[in-house]
Amino acid sequence: MIEDKNQQRTSLGNLGEFGLIEHLTHDITTAQPGTLKGIGDDGAVLDFKDKKIVVSTDLLVEGVHFDLAYMPLKHLGYKAVVVNVSDIYAMNAKPTQITVSIAVSNRFPVEALDELYDGIKLAAKSYGVDIVGGDTTSSQKGMILSITALGEANAEDITYRSGAGETDLLVVTGDVGAAYMGLKVLEREKEVFVVNPQNQPDLDAYSYLIERQLKPEARQDINGILKALELKPTAMIDVSDGLSSEIIHLCRQSGVGCNLYEEKIPVDPQLINVCEEFNIDITTVAINGGEDYELLFTIAMEDFEKIKANPNFTVIGHMTQESEGIHLITRANTKIPLKARGWNALQEE
Amino acid sequence: MIEDKNQQRTSLGNLGEFGLIEHLTHDITTAQPGTLKGIGDDGAVLDFKDKKIVVSTDLLVEGVHFDLAYMPLKHLGYKAVVVNVSDIYAMNAKPTQITVSIAVSNRFPVEALDELYDGIKLAAKSYGVDIVGGDTTSSQKGMILSITALGEANAEDITYRSGAGETDLLVVTGDVGAAYMGLKVLEREKEVFVVNPQNQPDLDAYSYLIERQLKPEARQDINGILKALELKPTAMIDVSDGLSSEIIHLCRQSGVGCNLYEEKIPVDPQLINVCEEFNIDITTVAINGGEDYELLFTIAMEDFEKIKANPNFTVIGHMTQESEGIHLITRANTKIPLKARGWNALQEE
Repeated sequence: MIEDKNQQRTSLGNLGEFGLIEHLTHDITTAQPGTLKGIGDDGAVLDFKDKKIVVSTDLLVEGVHFDLAYMPLKHLGYKAVVVNVSDIYAMNAKPTQITVSIAVSNRFPVEALDELYDGIKLAAKSYGVDIVGGDTTSSQKGMILSITALGEANAEDITYRSGAGETDLLVVTGDVGAAYMGLKVLEREKEVFVVNPQNQPDLDAYSYLIERQLKPEARQDINGILKALELKPTAMIDVSDGLSSEIIHLCRQSGVGCNLYEEKIPVDPQLINVCEEFNIDITTVAINGGEDYELLFTIAMEDFEKIKANPNFTVIGHMTQESEGIHLITRANTKIPLKARGWNALQEE
Repeated sequence: MIEDKNQQRTSLGNLGEFGLIEHLTHDITTAQPGTLKGIGDDGAVLDFKDKKIVVSTDLLVEGVHFDLAYMPLKHLGYKAVVVNVSDIYAMNAKPTQITVSIAVSNRFPVEALDELYDGIKLAAKSYGVDIVGGDTTSSQKGMILSITALGEANAEDITYRSGAGETDLLVVTGDVGAAYMGLKVLEREKEVFVVNPQNQPDLDAYSYLIERQLKPEARQDINGILKALELKPTAMIDVSDGLSSEIIHLCRQSGVGCNLYEEKIPVDPQLINVCEEFNIDITTVAINGGEDYELLFTIAMEDFEKIKANPNFTVIGHMTQESEGIHLITRANTKIPLKARGWNALQEE
């Protein structure tokens, strides 16, 4: 993305720290009525009136969370915001503001940061959040992004991880595993590119998976849908580290067990094809893959009627007594204990 | 600090990401009545009732903002919190919560992170803020710390950078320049150590400077003192990048000029001695040094009586019409335009 020798390259040193901040943020305006003061002072000033405030933060490190060889900077900026607002949605709250801190080495020209910020600003617009502050500094190596998101909610609407009951149903939005396989496809293409830089990859058969990896979206729509259904989840979390990890979080914090049914886990048809091509077990990917940014939640059994046949939701299991443990029930009807591996662990295989 | 071969070293890999977070945060409790939910969910949940919320964030990068060769990890953790709460004080607000994100390479054992967190927890206690969330991840190289601080204030108490009037007095707390010279002393000792590792440095003559660099404190006391004096600054900022930079920020955002009087700038006697020893101009250090975490503010002329003879405050200049520019008035009564160099710029000399 930034290796094209013909494009303009302005050295970061030309602008200086204050100049760079001004350059990147001069066109940022605010829209939230609660943003009293955004960028430009020692701190932002916010007003949430009688709402509660939800705060979440994420740190993204080049080479650990993203690889600029196949992650365009604009997409990276967009995704960094998505990751954070997803956490706010997982509390059943509405994201309202973000702060954005960036450290970059001198190898990045100003134009690269412009691209990154374009993605950040686009996502902020798309999710209706104000950019109210941040920090821009240099790094010894690579790029580091730290975003903190704030959101608001009525006290009675907030969903914690700890509220799942012993007989609750386990529900997930959308489908899972695609973002992980998108990464695998991109990694393979990078290897091909290293061997033969002239090769023009045909990625049509992988378009959904790659989009899930490069331009994921947080489930901005779900809280409204739940409200319209008059349905409050008993517990909720977003799927960032993988279904398996998130289920274990819900179980541990709620003091319950869980049976997850392999045959119920929603996956995209493209994922099935590509898992076959890569000779990878599809359920392993679906439960450990991560970065799907879907919402995983539990509801009381009597609320089943409210979500039945709703295409946004799939019931994938049910909670149990804590003593029964946390298991995957396979298609062959065997019980396998779920392990929290997370997508980092999977990466190391 | 972490090179002692005899001390215990637990590899980060032994704990895993979730284990590490649990290990570092299991003893963190919350004390602020407004913290409804701290660490352990997708987001923290806070209640500020009818107060306004102030948010500030900072990113600290190894090799750029700190050098672990002379910055003990506990001090680093403490300082990272101080830097952030200082921004909240600079808004005339009270810090209430922080989030802490850390990226580290595998060269750090768990015990090193324990030390770092000890410093963070100590500072949180000392400034009365709750640690309510964060992120812990690996880095390809070195350590990166990102802290976001939240604070609260009544709307009418908040001070912005933009409120300085044309005839206001410019006031600074404490003294300036010491933290920068503390860094110079430590850098020199590091060079000596490289040549002769057996050398035991005698740093008594530099104790104040080194403490200002390694264990700075934010001016937690000033807001209370101002309130007791029934004095509201017209504009305020904290001195993190250097007096000169901060004055320029106040002037630009308030649309005023400034005369800063060299002879009025408060410096510690130890700074005078050490500047002589290093053959560095003391005023250059005092106005460009940075990292002092003192508060710089403007007050209406008629409020002068309230701070006169108060040992916490020094009047160092006065604001002017914008067209008059921003100048240092030297002891020889010559006018030199002030430049925003910041401590990073100074470092590169």
